[in-house]
Parts: sequence; C-alpha cells; structure tokens
Amino acid sequence: MRGTTGENAHMLSERLKSLGIALPALAGPFGAYVPARRAGDLVYVSGQLPVKDGRLIAAGPVPSQCALEQAQLAARQCAINALAAAASVEGGVDRITGVLRVGVFVCCDPGFAEQPKVANGASELFLEIFGDPGRHVRAAVGVAALPLGATVELEAVFTCRS
Amino acid sequence: MRGTTGENAHMLSERLKSLGIALPALAGPFGAYVPARRAGDLVYVSGQLPVKDGRLIAAGPVPSQCALEQAQLAARQCAINALAAAASVEGGVDRITGVLRVGVFVCCDPGFAEQPKVANGASELFLEIFGDPGRHVRAAVGVAALPLGATVELEAVFTCRS
Amino acid sequence: MRGTTGENAHMLSERLKSLGIALPALAGPFGAYVPARRAGDLVYVSGQLPVKDGRLIAAGPVPSQCALEQAQLAARQCAINALAAAASVEGGVDRITGVLRVGVFVCCDPGFAEQPKVANGASELFLEIFGDPGRHVRAAVGVAALPLGATVELEAVFTCRS
Repeated sequence: MRGTTGENAHMLSERLKSLGIALPALAGPFGAYVPARRAGDLVYVSGQLPVKDGRLIAAGPVPSQCALEQAQLAARQCAINALAAAASVEGGVDRITGVLRVGVFVCCDPGFAEQPKVANGASELFLEIFGDPGRHVRAAVGVAALPLGATVELEAVFTCRS
Repeated sequence: MRGTTGENAHMLSERLKSLGIALPALAGPFGAYVPARRAGDLVYVSGQLPVKDGRLIAAGPVPSQCALEQAQLAARQCAINALAAAASVEGGVDRITGVLRVGVFVCCDPGFAEQPKVANGASELFLEIFGDPGRHVRAAVGVAALPLGATVELEAVFTCRS
Repeated sequence: MRGTTGENAHMLSERLKSLGIALPALAGPFGAYVPARRAGDLVYVSGQLPVKDGRLIAAGPVPSQCALEQAQLAARQCAINALAAAASVEGGVDRITGVLRVGVFVCCDPGFAEQPKVANGASELFLEIFGDPGRHVRAAVGVAALPLGATVELEAVFTCRS
C-alpha cells in the first residue's frame, strides 16, 4: 500500500490512471439535494449506491441474496462514485487531498456481523488511492433496506485544498 | 422553487411566514444531550422525530403500517423541527443561512426501496425555504426501529452567520 | 451532574480518575481506517463497539437477546472507548475539551422504541466527565445487525484544543 505524499500529492489523477480507475461522469440533473457540497476545507458527499455504468452491481441483503465478495466490490464502487462526486464540486479530483470519514450502511440479514469486511472494500481503495491521507474514521452498520434495493450505501467526507 | 438570495438572504423569518410555516417552540428542559450545538459556522442538530403539537404524526414501518405519503409528510415535519432546533441556539432563524447535510432514517419493511422519496419531503422543504443555499448532501437509509416507534428520524447540519 | 469548567477544564485526566474511569489502551495495529482523526478543532472517532478487556459485553438485539440495562452499560463502554480513541490521536485526554455529536446505533428487534434510553448510557457519562462542554447533539436509531454481533455501536465527534 504505497501512498501519494509530498510533491506527488497533487497528482491524484495520475495515481488513479496508474490504478486503472476511471471516475464516472455524474448523472444529472439533481433534485433538492446535491452529490457533494464544500464546507471549509471539507467536501461532504451524499450517500452513494453501487451503481456502475448505470446499473446496480449488488442488490439485496448479505448473505442471503448477495455474497460477501460482491458486497465488498459494491463498497469499492460506492467509494469510486463518492470520489467522483467530490471531484465534481471541486473542479477536478486533483483538488481532493484525503478522506476524513466514511459511513457504510450494509443491507444484511439479522445476525450478519461482517460489516467491517464489506466496508474494507471502500477503505482499502481509499488507502490505495490516497496513501496516508486516505486513512479515515469509519462507522459500518447493518440495516434493513436501502434505496433501489442496493446492498451498500456509502457516505464520505473528503479533505480538499484551501 | 424560488430561492432566497442576495439581499433577501437574511429574511428567512419572512420567507417562512410567506410559506405559512410556523416554527414550533422547543420542548424542554433537555437531558444529557441538546437539540443543537454550534461548531464554527455550522450548527449541528440532534435527530428529530415527526412530532407536531406534541403528537407523533407517523408511526411504524413503511409501507406496512405507514403509507409513503404520510412518511413524506413526516420527513417534512422533521425538517421543520430541525430548523427550529437550529434557530434555538442561534438566537433566531434569520441567522441560519443554509443546509449542509441531512441524514434521514426511515423505519421500513425489508425490501422497501423508496427511502429517497420519503427523504424528499424534507429536502424539498429546505430548498423551498432557503433556495440554493438549501441544497445539501444527503444519506437516506432504511432501519428496523426508531425512537417512540416513529417512521422517520432526521438529523441535519446547517450553515449559519459568523 | 457537576461540570468541569474554567480553570479545571484541562484536568480531564484528574476528573476521570475521580470517577474511577480508566481509559483502555487501543488495540492495534489498524487497517485501512483509523480509530480517530483530527480536522480543525474537531476529532472524529470511528464507530466503537462495547468491548472491555478484549471482550464484547453486550451482544444481540434488544430486548430479545440483550436487556435494556445491559445495552445502557454497553453504550457507556462505547463512550469510554471513543474517548480513548480521541485521546490517542491528540497525545492525551487532557487535550479533549468536549463532545459535539454522538451517533448511537442500537441493534434491536422490530418494534423496540427505547433507543434514547440506551443512548443515555453514553450521553450521561459524557456529561459527567465534561460537564457543560459534554452536552452534544445526538442521533439514536435501531438497526438490524452490527459488527461482531454487538448490541451497540457509537460514533462521536469531540472538540479539542487548537
């Protein structure tokens, strides 16, 4: 897990390229809420679903309707979508410097206890992308139901340049 | 959806009047937690329930015990209560300038996927009241149970004057 | 409920001693996420479980598998662990000045409505420790499942010295 630090810190777009990660364009227009909003040096991002190329990649509760591995991929996709949302209000991903907080809601059956493993799909990606500044605080909980029937919803607060 | 901008931005109390919205007085005294607390230029508000005139206006899970339309009204009421809470620590609603983040917890049956429609009851009201500065980030999730058996709980972070 | 105010405000370690509360050492090393992270004058803390001396002190949903009283003790333990996490990134608990926000997730059966009573186990402890600066905003909700099968998960944002 190498970090992007010092003089390379502003080359996040290069880092994403080297990891083979393309940020999706945001769908729109949006309604009464927005994908991301800045406050001071933080960028708050709305709850993201595991949508890729317009399609939900994980639906239903873990583990009865969605396997743990698929839920981890879903969390990773939510993280990519969250970064895209943050970049959209800041005029480019190179202005995003790190991750402060991640909240992960996992749709699961009662008795499921592996929410942290699901959330690691997002946390490990942020660490891979940002290095040390990607280390965030996190809350991961299991819930009964999520929008669109998605398996994972992720919200995040990023740090950004002044 | 007209906005309150520029020189009118500080006339939020007038705007509320023109919309026919009266902010409730807060019940009290409070215990170990408080309805709202300021940090920098933000006002954090505690989770609000859909209480109006001392009575819960929506109880039980959507859709088996509470219809979608009633849950939307509940979210709207939570938003009004949240604004009242924010105003209470700032010495009046005219010091509140916008909405940064809204978290909406919807008590629902497994398989319910319309949490965003419920949350719109709150988001659209904030947009109507504040205009553009009311556009916020949002997370909406479905949960098993809420305090008092309520259908909706809403927490919020507002922006305020320095 | 006496408060620590004014000149005593920096003696939080003394206050903890007089209350008979010992902060646990943090387990480690940590993975892609961290127990706490500072942003400005705030310290964000990851979701804490009711672990004491390496053991979960409350498991399963309230009330079918865990009594209300035990869930309250669990919330209290989460609060202690959260304070320990905040102290760990600030170089000591005396640099923590208050509590801004607490989020409490209670694993419960459908129909359970006493999440606030559970959360009071944490809120009252914070008030006892910090006095007035410990008064925080709070959201308490009921969820289907939590990591390790825990009954309570608590996240928090503390205020700290500049």
